Order: sequence, then structure tokens, then C-alpha cells
Amino acid sequence: MRRATLRPDLAVLTMAGLLEARPRVGYFYSGKTPYMLIAEEIRHLKVMEVKSVPVVVTEDASVYDAIVALFTEDVGTLFIVTNDSCLVGAVSRKDLLKVALGQGDLHKIPVQVVMTRLANIITVSGEESVYDAASKLVVHEVDALPVVEVISEDSDREMLKVIGRFTKTTVVRIFVEMGEGR
Amino acid sequence: MRRATLRPDLAVLTMAGLLEARPRVGYFYSGKTPYMLIAEEIRHLKVMEVKSVPVVVTEDASVYDAIVALFTEDVGTLFIVTNDSCLVGAVSRKDLLKVALGQGDLHKIPVQVVMTRLANIITVSGEESVYDAASKLVVHEVDALPVVEVISEDSDREMLKVIGRFTKTTVVRIFVEMGEGR
Repeated sequence: MRRATLRPDLAVLTMAGLLEARPRVGYFYSGKTPYMLIAEEIRHLKVMEVKSVPVVVTEDASVYDAIVALFTEDVGTLFIVTNDSCLVGAVSRKDLLKVALGQGDLHKIPVQVVMTRLANIITVSGEESVYDAASKLVVHEVDALPVVEVISEDSDREMLKVIGRFTKTTVVRIFVEMGEGR
Repeated sequence: MRRATLRPDLAVLTMAGLLEARPRVGYFYSGKTPYMLIAEEIRHLKVMEVKSVPVVVTEDASVYDAIVALFTEDVGTLFIVTNDSCLVGAVSRKDLLKVALGQGDLHKIPVQVVMTRLANIITVSGEESVYDAASKLVVHEVDALPVVEVISEDSDREMLKVIGRFTKTTVVRIFVEMGEGR
């Protein structure tokens, strides 16, 4: 087998996918612009690789407990789970602010009364791309997505386990890393 | 003057700055990786070009008024200004949630009592890059920055006018556009 000698100064572009090298033909332009390459990168990077630890509260907790968790963990969204760790809902700072304005005793109102229920929550799987997850944040106008794993599909409705969170902060962090040329 | 014939299939890479073309020398690698080019782009894009409209409340407004503005405008952070439109502070959902938990009458508490004061607010100018602004969001752990213009530096302290807002949502939107290869 014979390999053509290829120009070392073009090797970086070849690795990046901008040029393709063929023995005896030499280099030719792969048809991709740098923006298309970055688009590919964002579409390949998986949620699994960048997700944060989820902050959860059980469904029997009070609104007051939820507010405390939100401040102590310093997150914008809490995920609500059953005692078996199944996702049943989510509450945001906005939801809790609305309840706090009311006249009720926050210690006595269960968080499940005020949460957004599972059917209306936008979720993401660890296998989805960072691009898909970021698009969901924009399209659905939410601050955070629970990263979920399907536990069982046997029953009438899907059972989901929360394995992480993907938030606007996650995206801003990736963006700054990209700006550093990493 | 004589110009060498340069390969048209490499023209895109030349425009992108990845290759440089020199008459009689041909193409050579400019030393930049696609990541470095994207980093450059993020560092060149100005806050001015991507900022949103700011949502402001005057300093004599009550905490209740501020909460209403936050819900009706659906923003996470409000900027507080004097009657002459000078920036004096900011309040976030988190700040307002904390106050709402207290026993006071929200109609009677002026927002300037609970706001973060100017000296502790991180600001950005329209001329700064999107990269610098996003870095400030990460480093200072805030959701939004007021985009400001210096009105006067004559007095003891700087007078700033709010001309926009730069938030995590702004960054997520740019990120999704980049993922579309634009």
C-alpha cells in the first residue's frame, strides 16, 4: 500500500473536517464552513456530558420547605419527586413567588398543589444534544429542564427518574468555554 | 501588477481566515483552528447588537408594584431607576421572593429598601463583547446585566442610563442560532 505525502501544515484543517486528504489527489475543500463545524459540535455534544446535579423535593413537602430548598441550594427550579424518586412535577421561583403573595400558611400548603405537573413539563434525555436541549429552553420559554431516564413504560403512563438538570446557566458556561477557544 | 490564480475551492477557507492566499506562494495554514475562529466571532459580536429592551421601575415604586411588573413583563430581573432614568439598583425574583416571605405589607415597602444597590451591580456597556458579558454572568453568578451608558462622570459618582438588558436567555438564543450553522 502506498500513501501520498500530505502537507503537515494542512493537517489541522483535515482533522477539523474542513479539508479532506486523498492520496494522489491532495487536499480538497470538504464543503463545510467553520460555522457548520461548530453547529456539528453543538449537535454532537450530549446533555449527559454537561448536566448538573438535580435538586429535588418530595411531593409531600410544604411550599415553605420548597422555598427553603430553593434558597439553600441556590437554584431557579426544583423538581418534585415521589418517595420512589419518580418525577411528578417542577416548581420555579416564579411559581413560588406567586404562592407567597397569597394569604395561605406556606407551611400547610403541599408543594404538589402549586407545582407544574409532569404532563406539562418539558424534559430532556442524557442522549440528546446540547443544541436540542438549548432549543427546548428557547421554544418553551423555561429556565431549566430535568434530565430524565425512563424507568418503566409498563403502566398507563411513563415513569421517569430525574438524573440531572440542564439550565440556561449550563448553556452560558459552554458558551464561555467556546469563547476561550477550547 | 500580477495576481496568481488561486484555487476557488479553497476560497471559503480563505475568507474564513483559516487559509491565507499569497500570489506565487499559494495557500498556507493561517494557524487558526475553527474553534479559535468561533472564539474570535464571539469576542467580536457586540452586546449592542443582541441586547433586549430593559424593564425598569422607578425607585419610589412599592415591592408590590415591582412584583406585578416582573409578572406582566415576564422578566427575571428589574432595574430600578430615578425619575431622571438614572440606574440606582436591581431586584431579582429571588430578592422579591425573600421579601414576600416576610410579614410586611408589600404595598408599603418601597422597592429601594430591598433592591441591590448600584455599587454592587455588575453592568456591561454596548461596546463590550458578548463573550465578556457572558463571562460576567458566569463569574458573578447573576441572571441579567443592565446594558448601560455613562451620562455624566462630573459628580462624585458615575451616573448611568440603562439602555438594555443582557441575560442568560440572550446567550441561549445566540447559542441556538450558532447550532443552526448561522
